Amino acid sequence: MPIHPELDLVIERDVNVPAAALWRGWTEPELLMQWFCPRPWRVVECDIDLKPGGLFRTVMQSPEGESLPEGVGTYLVVEPGQRLVWTNALGPGFRLQPAPAEEHLGFFFVVDLTLEPLPGGGTRYRGVCTHQTTAAREAHEKMGFHQGWGIALDQLVELSALPP
Amino acid sequence: MPIHPELDLVIERDVNVPAAALWRGWTEPELLMQWFCPRPWRVVECDIDLKPGGLFRTVMQSPEGESLPEGVGTYLVVEPGQRLVWTNALGPGFRLQPAPAEEHLGFFFVVDLTLEPLPGGGTRYRGVCTHQTTAAREAHEKMGFHQGWGIALDQLVELSALPP
Repeated sequence: MPIHPELDLVIERDVNVPAAALWRGWTEPELLMQWFCPRPWRVVECDIDLKPGGLFRTVMQSPEGESLPEGVGTYLVVEPGQRLVWTNALGPGFRLQPAPAEEHLGFFFVVDLTLEPLPGGGTRYRGVCTHQTTAAREAHEKMGFHQGWGIALDQLVELSALPP
Repeated sequence: MPIHPELDLVIERDVNVPAAALWRGWTEPELLMQWFCPRPWRVVECDIDLKPGGLFRTVMQSPEGESLPEGVGTYLVVEPGQRLVWTNALGPGFRLQPAPAEEHLGFFFVVDLTLEPLPGGGTRYRGVCTHQTTAAREAHEKMGFHQGWGIALDQLVELSALPP
């Protein structure tokens, strides 16, 4: 998808782990919970029904033990090992979601994740997060998108480099 | 998809034409333009890129020749001859759409169309239109959902019964 600079936030990095391992990290709840939000925050609940229209649900918890409202979304594209598109604007069965609560990610987004194999066994990891408005993009950026997604990716790479 | 009575509007009817003909009516622009809105309104422009994330665009025109703002959406599920899911909440490439203009369908919806073959060559035609809020469902119903979709289906059946 071509980047829209006023609506999109992008993370792209070449990492030294195979696409298959990164895919597992994104699609298996017990793995996702170990990297998906920057520590000392953690994901304490995760449901994944890996198909278009299937549930993707996470609950994040602060270091003080306070849980955020659950994040509910659905998958739009599932191409194993290669591409995963999901959004919080639709829920399971493609139902339109109520407007998200202000206190956390108070806006809709669509994430388009692509994993491109590189010579030597690494992967070009690219996540594009699109927003409905420029204001939502700016709010997400100020919330620390780049740092947050960067740290989470560090955690995913660390996890993915472990022996299976 | 199970029906949610407060969020969904449903049209279901057994019709005496094959699913393949109804599918063509929904997916070929030159056919869709002949039935998609109740006459004397008409569809004067239509673009269809029939794949998940592909463009679905229509422009409707009043009998007085006034065009409505274009309706832009995308497909979520494309199962030829059987099921078509599309929404105006996302556009091509699954981009989040701006809130729709008040003057026409001023809300987001998702349509889940299923075509079930019946013994004897007919089809059980079922369209479920889901909304984000009860208020949107009510507004759509008052706008004449049942009458409008009913007349449009009459027109589709009439068209589909023609020799190819």
